[in-house]
Amino acid sequence: MIKISELISFIEEDAPSGDITSLAVLPDKNCRAYIRAKSNGVIAGLEESAALFEHYNVSVKKLAGDGSFVRDGDTLLELDGSIHSILLVERTALNIIGRMSGIATNTWRITSEIKKINSGVKLAATRKTAPGLRNLDKKAVILGGGEPHRNTLSDQFLIKDNHLAVTSIADAIAKARAFSVYKKIEIEVESQGDAVTAAENGADIIMLDNMTPEEVLKTIDTLKSRGLRDTVILEVSGGINEDTIGEYAVLDIDIISIGALTHTVTNFDVNLEINHSLKTVIL
Amino acid sequence: MIKISELISFIEEDAPSGDITSLAVLPDKNCRAYIRAKSNGVIAGLEESAALFEHYNVSVKKLAGDGSFVRDGDTLLELDGSIHSILLVERTALNIIGRMSGIATNTWRITSEIKKINSGVKLAATRKTAPGLRNLDKKAVILGGGEPHRNTLSDQFLIKDNHLAVTSIADAIAKARAFSVYKKIEIEVESQGDAVTAAENGADIIMLDNMTPEEVLKTIDTLKSRGLRDTVILEVSGGINEDTIGEYAVLDIDIISIGALTHTVTNFDVNLEINHSLKTVIL
Amino acid sequence: MIKISELISFIEEDAPSGDITSLAVLPDKNCRAYIRAKSNGVIAGLEESAALFEHYNVSVKKLAGDGSFVRDGDTLLELDGSIHSILLVERTALNIIGRMSGIATNTWRITSEIKKINSGVKLAATRKTAPGLRNLDKKAVILGGGEPHRNTLSDQFLIKDNHLAVTSIADAIAKARAFSVYKKIEIEVESQGDAVTAAENGADIIMLDNMTPEEVLKTIDTLKSRGLRDTVILEVSGGINEDTIGEYAVLDIDIISIGALTHTVTNFDVNLEINHSLKTVIL
Amino acid sequence: MIKISELISFIEEDAPSGDITSLAVLPDKNCRAYIRAKSNGVIAGLEESAALFEHYNVSVKKLAGDGSFVRDGDTLLELDGSIHSILLVERTALNIIGRMSGIATNTWRITSEIKKINSGVKLAATRKTAPGLRNLDKKAVILGGGEPHRNTLSDQFLIKDNHLAVTSIADAIAKARAFSVYKKIEIEVESQGDAVTAAENGADIIMLDNMTPEEVLKTIDTLKSRGLRDTVILEVSGGINEDTIGEYAVLDIDIISIGALTHTVTNFDVNLEINHSLKTVIL
Amino acid sequence: MIKISELISFIEEDAPSGDITSLAVLPDKNCRAYIRAKSNGVIAGLEESAALFEHYNVSVKKLAGDGSFVRDGDTLLELDGSIHSILLVERTALNIIGRMSGIATNTWRITSEIKKINSGVKLAATRKTAPGLRNLDKKAVILGGGEPHRNTLSDQFLIKDNHLAVTSIADAIAKARAFSVYKKIEIEVESQGDAVTAAENGADIIMLDNMTPEEVLKTIDTLKSRGLRDTVILEVSGGINEDTIGEYAVLDIDIISIGALTHTVTNFDVNLEINHSLKTVIL
Amino acid sequence: MIKISELISFIEEDAPSGDITSLAVLPDKNCRAYIRAKSNGVIAGLEESAALFEHYNVSVKKLAGDGSFVRDGDTLLELDGSIHSILLVERTALNIIGRMSGIATNTWRITSEIKKINSGVKLAATRKTAPGLRNLDKKAVILGGGEPHRNTLSDQFLIKDNHLAVTSIADAIAKARAFSVYKKIEIEVESQGDAVTAAENGADIIMLDNMTPEEVLKTIDTLKSRGLRDTVILEVSGGINEDTIGEYAVLDIDIISIGALTHTVTNFDVNLEINHSLKTVIL
Repeated sequence: MIKISELISFIEEDAPSGDITSLAVLPDKNCRAYIRAKSNGVIAGLEESAALFEHYNVSVKKLAGDGSFVRDGDTLLELDGSIHSILLVERTALNIIGRMSGIATNTWRITSEIKKINSGVKLAATRKTAPGLRNLDKKAVILGGGEPHRNTLSDQFLIKDNHLAVTSIADAIAKARAFSVYKKIEIEVESQGDAVTAAENGADIIMLDNMTPEEVLKTIDTLKSRGLRDTVILEVSGGINEDTIGEYAVLDIDIISIGALTHTVTNFDVNLEINHSLKTVIL
Repeated sequence: MIKISELISFIEEDAPSGDITSLAVLPDKNCRAYIRAKSNGVIAGLEESAALFEHYNVSVKKLAGDGSFVRDGDTLLELDGSIHSILLVERTALNIIGRMSGIATNTWRITSEIKKINSGVKLAATRKTAPGLRNLDKKAVILGGGEPHRNTLSDQFLIKDNHLAVTSIADAIAKARAFSVYKKIEIEVESQGDAVTAAENGADIIMLDNMTPEEVLKTIDTLKSRGLRDTVILEVSGGINEDTIGEYAVLDIDIISIGALTHTVTNFDVNLEINHSLKTVIL
Repeated sequence: MIKISELISFIEEDAPSGDITSLAVLPDKNCRAYIRAKSNGVIAGLEESAALFEHYNVSVKKLAGDGSFVRDGDTLLELDGSIHSILLVERTALNIIGRMSGIATNTWRITSEIKKINSGVKLAATRKTAPGLRNLDKKAVILGGGEPHRNTLSDQFLIKDNHLAVTSIADAIAKARAFSVYKKIEIEVESQGDAVTAAENGADIIMLDNMTPEEVLKTIDTLKSRGLRDTVILEVSGGINEDTIGEYAVLDIDIISIGALTHTVTNFDVNLEINHSLKTVIL
Repeated sequence: MIKISELISFIEEDAPSGDITSLAVLPDKNCRAYIRAKSNGVIAGLEESAALFEHYNVSVKKLAGDGSFVRDGDTLLELDGSIHSILLVERTALNIIGRMSGIATNTWRITSEIKKINSGVKLAATRKTAPGLRNLDKKAVILGGGEPHRNTLSDQFLIKDNHLAVTSIADAIAKARAFSVYKKIEIEVESQGDAVTAAENGADIIMLDNMTPEEVLKTIDTLKSRGLRDTVILEVSGGINEDTIGEYAVLDIDIISIGALTHTVTNFDVNLEINHSLKTVIL
Repeated sequence: MIKISELISFIEEDAPSGDITSLAVLPDKNCRAYIRAKSNGVIAGLEESAALFEHYNVSVKKLAGDGSFVRDGDTLLELDGSIHSILLVERTALNIIGRMSGIATNTWRITSEIKKINSGVKLAATRKTAPGLRNLDKKAVILGGGEPHRNTLSDQFLIKDNHLAVTSIADAIAKARAFSVYKKIEIEVESQGDAVTAAENGADIIMLDNMTPEEVLKTIDTLKSRGLRDTVILEVSGGINEDTIGEYAVLDIDIISIGALTHTVTNFDVNLEINHSLKTVIL
Repeated sequence: MIKISELISFIEEDAPSGDITSLAVLPDKNCRAYIRAKSNGVIAGLEESAALFEHYNVSVKKLAGDGSFVRDGDTLLELDGSIHSILLVERTALNIIGRMSGIATNTWRITSEIKKINSGVKLAATRKTAPGLRNLDKKAVILGGGEPHRNTLSDQFLIKDNHLAVTSIADAIAKARAFSVYKKIEIEVESQGDAVTAAENGADIIMLDNMTPEEVLKTIDTLKSRGLRDTVILEVSGGINEDTIGEYAVLDIDIISIGALTHTVTNFDVNLEINHSLKTVIL
């Protein structure tokens, strides 16, 4: 779902009083322009960029779909309209595509590595997104084949150490369930014992936080021995990076969540080129 | 300048219907909490975080100042207030500090490397920021000792290839100057000849785009031979990274601008801990 | 979580150019005023009203807590401040309290009736709220002891007939689970067969829609006979009112959801009185 | 006048991160859908609903007009467009139509009863509307044949007891008139004497508040005996309901105002059905 | 009623990325500053300016009240706070005071001239205000002793030639009255005959548009001869300026309205001075 | 760049609950209307007005371009659409055109006078604009042939007496340059000595504030004698009006800036007429 007013706010951030260079230097005319990939990867942000260009009366032909794999040189969008409008939107569109495709590509890449090891394990994002970009960042994760995880503080229970400092696992789960049965209950634990208690009390998801692969393995064994492994979804989290992810992926877990998916983003390179050879009309 | 409504919008993004876990599980009480650095670097985003906590009636004591160098373990903010409010703001505050400090730290690190080579060269950011975060990203660059460069399309002329495809350098500069003399005129050029023409026509800043160090050197020599070097600010840009930056920094240039400063950010690790041992009062 | 800008927008709706009667007729002075209940019931909206009065610099002493049972004549809030400000906020505050307490009281009343019959059954609201008032309406349901159910289209899967016209139950559940394991999957069914299929395929919640008590009973029996009853939460919905609710409440179900809880609201009567006998100071 | 940004905000309230069920389960395709009445009454909210669907690129054919009387089963809107968009808007549109038509229908019904007794008396709403829905609620009253009364604190003088505690009737009217002659002056009175004083001092409208029919009758007689009846509009208000309204409607009054018209609303039942038999195209 | 978010938006308009001069040049410190009048006249905008300074944590002592007459050199506000904050708000506050006081002073001056001639005539503003400043412009008129007239299209009926081209005076008045009796009905007429018709049909206010003083006189005589003069408020409007206003003011009219009051504004000169001699503390 | 949401907010300001006169009195129908100039001058605001009418589905044919010279009687816009929509937008559109054309015409007129004396001198606006109308006011200045000057506190350094009370000219310039080389540095000075110091230290622009023509002349001579005249742009400002502007324009300066261009505006007269003779269709 495109929130067009939010996208327009990005343009107004970039041009509070308009694009003075184009206003001063460039007679307005219609032209054709192309947005092209300059790297290989999973593309994202085309829908948002197209909506923005269209808001400023630029026609858009989509030559690639969000979530598809593109290669360096591929044309993604073909644009026809006022050169003033195209240059006004250019940087914002490239910033959106660059960030979202960077997230999607990285998600896809790590997911591919995990799948080679264990097809039953999914890669999840966290709430460590850029402020104001929660939905775009999570959408990029989905387009890259990742699991979005909790979107906000409002859509799932996630009981952490700060909650458990005040109340017991059993009590916390009971209270959450009493509040609403329509949302899953996840508990973050740091010990085998707490994992067992959480499972026994009916947690839907258990996050094994900051455990070594060995500790995770022992916890799984303990859960299995008590017949609790299949009653819960197991997520491992905390300090896992590409070097160590393989050691977790081999285990009988369901989810590996990594904050870096959205907080440490590598931009995906795209550019916009105007075709000046086309016959154009001064507006 | 803190835009408090923008900061609040980040909270509303993260909790459209409130923090259901705390609401369900945790009796509201006053507590003390600490935000601590988990890495070494230049800290940023404390002012914004403090403003947010204070908006939700949490008292804040600042133990470090934005722009200062902090070490892993340093306490940055001491918080006193409702545990519900502290947990509501926690993730947003950490996301702001994490991103801004990541940018500030990276800016400071690269700037330090440049300064070792040539104290006359500054590191500049670009408009390749996260959508919606232009001001926070640029502020982080400044706190890291960087040059913010053009903030928006409205505050400087930057004449690029798409403008020059339609008009000449001389004409573009003349039109920009006629539009307003209160804003600097920068031209992006890709050849020595264009650099000379730009300088001859009174450009304030010349961006040497995608040139090799050798090409930059020749361009500087040509400008010097015509007595034009000191009439302009020289910026080099385009595909420069940490491996190659030294080859440019030795040259007689003024600015090196790098998009990655804000589009490819490494999060700075911070956390929030609640002191549960303190005597607390159920609200 | 109070969204103060939303509450202020209600005042600006009610006074786009200020309260002209008070401006014209009434010298501004400080006074004390009381908000009092004029009926018996579960009160709600005090937190929101207090936040609004405080925004306009009126001091508020809370004499009752949201969610508590109050009686006709009970004083709820004691206000001290500018009479202009108190009259500016009066109607909006009373409208908020009136609607929210109406919802809370009705929820509490019906819940009490259900509990007499079957303490294991909860009363749930739906998304049939007043446009723009989702959070306030749902909060009122919670304060009245109800189950809020899905808050938005974003926080739970609810697969309905329009989805199932295109895809099978098994396929829909599989796709939802593949999209995210962090949100519960509910399916709306109108037949015993579909209920069994949904349970077999791992639905978390099954909504028995527009079934008679007899049909619900048979469906439960069938699920039980296959050992599926305890694997799902059972919600009954559709055309249930206070006359018929008892026939459902006796059954082995978990939830009864009723749209009327929020779409057909009876206002709870409250008023505001100014104490003119107190010594006041012309501002 | 449709405020489209306000309507869109209702959608964003209902889908802060999109409609995850449709995204996960349903391939997007074009389809046709119908909104149909499920009760008899005066319909309202079609204009707002149509504007919302059109904003999300769904074509709308209006088969009934706001303010017309419709019957159970009547088709109100025919929709053609993306099934994702139709399902995104569905609940919000139904909530708008349900509330507005509920108000319009009730207004029409009570007005009809009054007209049978006394065609000179109109039924008026108050400012006791749902917060944020003032304009929609008042529009529904107008569509139902009611008198909207004062829309806000800014568009009419209404002098109440809290004003009169500080100043006299004569003084208050004089001050209001001095403030502006472009807005009518209404006074709320609770005694015959005050009614006479108000009329003598040139009030445009007198609200007889919380009077029994006998008291109203005596007040009218007194006003008539002094030749003041025809100089003012007489409104009766306060605790009037459908059981007692007839006792007031027979009197020589102009307006009966009832808060319940907008604060105690019975939803009007409408639904949306998708025609799955039509040939559809996967987008 | 101060709308603080609107006032803050003026600051954000003036400093989209902060006040770079102060940030770069000036260590932040506390200081005292004064806003002083540089002309004689009726002051306005102090309440708005004070609210803005206070929002940015600057303490304000009001030394003059809105609507009072001040002289060149009078101190209006005394400010204590961060010099960064004071300079941030300075220009916006001065622009608000300058415009509002300019309007108030001009209103007061022309009103004074009218009162010398005919104390029964009031000077009214129109809707010809600066876009976005309706409330501030109208408030300034009120502070200057003027009549604000209709504030918006929503708060009064004003039937003009474009309405009367489609319907008759009698019909238009009847329809307006049927729509709502709570708002006054004004008719703009250009002939004696229409004025009589309007009065006969119960218009509350008649605007004699673009008539010469002689035509107005004749119209009044005609109305008087039919006993209609005292049933209506008479407003003259259209092309009246300070040279001609005296010719209208002598007549038996109630209101003279002039668009120039708000569309052709002369700024009132005020300035802000910082007291650098006070001992200040670097923040 | 049109900010459509800002323009719509002007309509919502003028009609918070719609245009009740048209709603009550006028059947909606399509009609044609014209906006015509009623004076001679440089027109502005047509682009904004057209965007507003089009937002409300009124077709617009532009018969004049912003910035062109028009004469009394010239048709500027031809409108086709719903009479309700045209009347809804009418006043806002006329207010925009009236203010912007007033500014543009005055700018053009004074600029013409200056050019007769000295073609090298430009007329500049200041930040003394109507709150909220910075961009529209500055755009009008540009359309009138003026120099917009600094748009906001964020886009240029302007070092004033309040900054220099704390730091020296040399230091202030150095700090500004260290902050960013991408923005020009202007210094406001009141003495020859400070002008020289500013030029010696590399100021880009020197504003000679509140100097007599003689003082300006001496300052220029001093700068010339030191070879500094051509290194800076010279702006004169402060108390210059149309009577005295000629005395400055003869001097070797670059810019004369006048706050009155935007703070003391004379409205440009335009009107809107509906062609009632055309065959129209009741909607």
